Amino acid sequence: MPLVRISLRKGKTPDYRRAIAKHVYEALREAFKVPDEDRFVLIDEYEGSDFIYSPSYLGVTRDDDLVMIQITANNTRTVDQKKALYAAIAERLAKDPGIRPENVLISLVEVAKENWSFGNGVAQYA
Amino acid sequence: MPLVRISLRKGKTPDYRRAIAKHVYEALREAFKVPDEDRFVLIDEYEGSDFIYSPSYLGVTRDDDLVMIQITANNTRTVDQKKALYAAIAERLAKDPGIRPENVLISLVEVAKENWSFGNGVAQYA
Amino acid sequence: MPLVRISLRKGKTPDYRRAIAKHVYEALREAFKVPDEDRFVLIDEYEGSDFIYSPSYLGVTRDDDLVMIQITANNTRTVDQKKALYAAIAERLAKDPGIRPENVLISLVEVAKENWSFGNGVAQYA
Repeated sequence: MPLVRISLRKGKTPDYRRAIAKHVYEALREAFKVPDEDRFVLIDEYEGSDFIYSPSYLGVTRDDDLVMIQITANNTRTVDQKKALYAAIAERLAKDPGIRPENVLISLVEVAKENWSFGNGVAQYA
Repeated sequence: MPLVRISLRKGKTPDYRRAIAKHVYEALREAFKVPDEDRFVLIDEYEGSDFIYSPSYLGVTRDDDLVMIQITANNTRTVDQKKALYAAIAERLAKDPGIRPENVLISLVEVAKENWSFGNGVAQYA
Repeated sequence: MPLVRISLRKGKTPDYRRAIAKHVYEALREAFKVPDEDRFVLIDEYEGSDFIYSPSYLGVTRDDDLVMIQITANNTRTVDQKKALYAAIAERLAKDPGIRPENVLISLVEVAKENWSFGNGVAQYA
């Protein structure tokens, strides 16, 4: 059910981008217990003039390898599960494709269960 | 009021993409009773490496003609209206531009009425 | 904390686009009291066939200079603060880069405070 939008600067390889998508999915499996195969990810690349970020907000040192990850998911997770998700994403991306944890920004948007159709015009979760 | 983001693989014609936008709007008119002319749609095309989906999640058979439709709308609709919206979108897109209903994924994000400005710096619905 | 997505027609200069980002941030500082340096903005440009809008909805006269601004922010603001935000954005963009207030569309998506990680896999606001 999560729909994931990954935004980053232009210039990375398709393998690099695919690795991000893979590990966000694996982290959602672990921390949010999303079902097997529940994987829908869009990746957008930006020129520098269109990818604007603070290099220091909250004392976190960001650079052009920053990845912004916006996840739309059901509103059924606890604060602890959300914290576990952020930790799992940052830890996994540090290993593959090798992103500094300070360069991982995550935004979670929550919706009701009946707010999805996964095909056939049916609300599969309602 | 809905803001619609349509995401699909590169390679379709402008007419094909415009047909999707048109029918999502018509379905919103029917099922959500949005006002006449309340039409705001952004369409994003993706390379295969940046458009990642499960070909089988929930037993639905998807392929590269998949369209992901994310709709931000007011939080005033019933579950039945949401179900009617999904059905109307899938049915309309099957006819024009001819998309298999299994290839229609819909994500609905709900917001409060005062969360919109349609111009002039005014919250027209508040 | 806000994550801002700015969508507009192709053809404007990087300076023009950066001015929009700057003034949305300044308006968020003023009206929403977001912290200094809390600035994260993505800008997407569209061909006409993929940027669909009503030129007249609610009696507002829009043209191809329309800018759609979608802001994800914490759910802690009053209706008056939201109204102040819309007014501040429209007023600022009218001055720089010079956008008619009728061409400023704003959509606000609200989330819980624990729905953000600004780096290091930590939920900084939770």
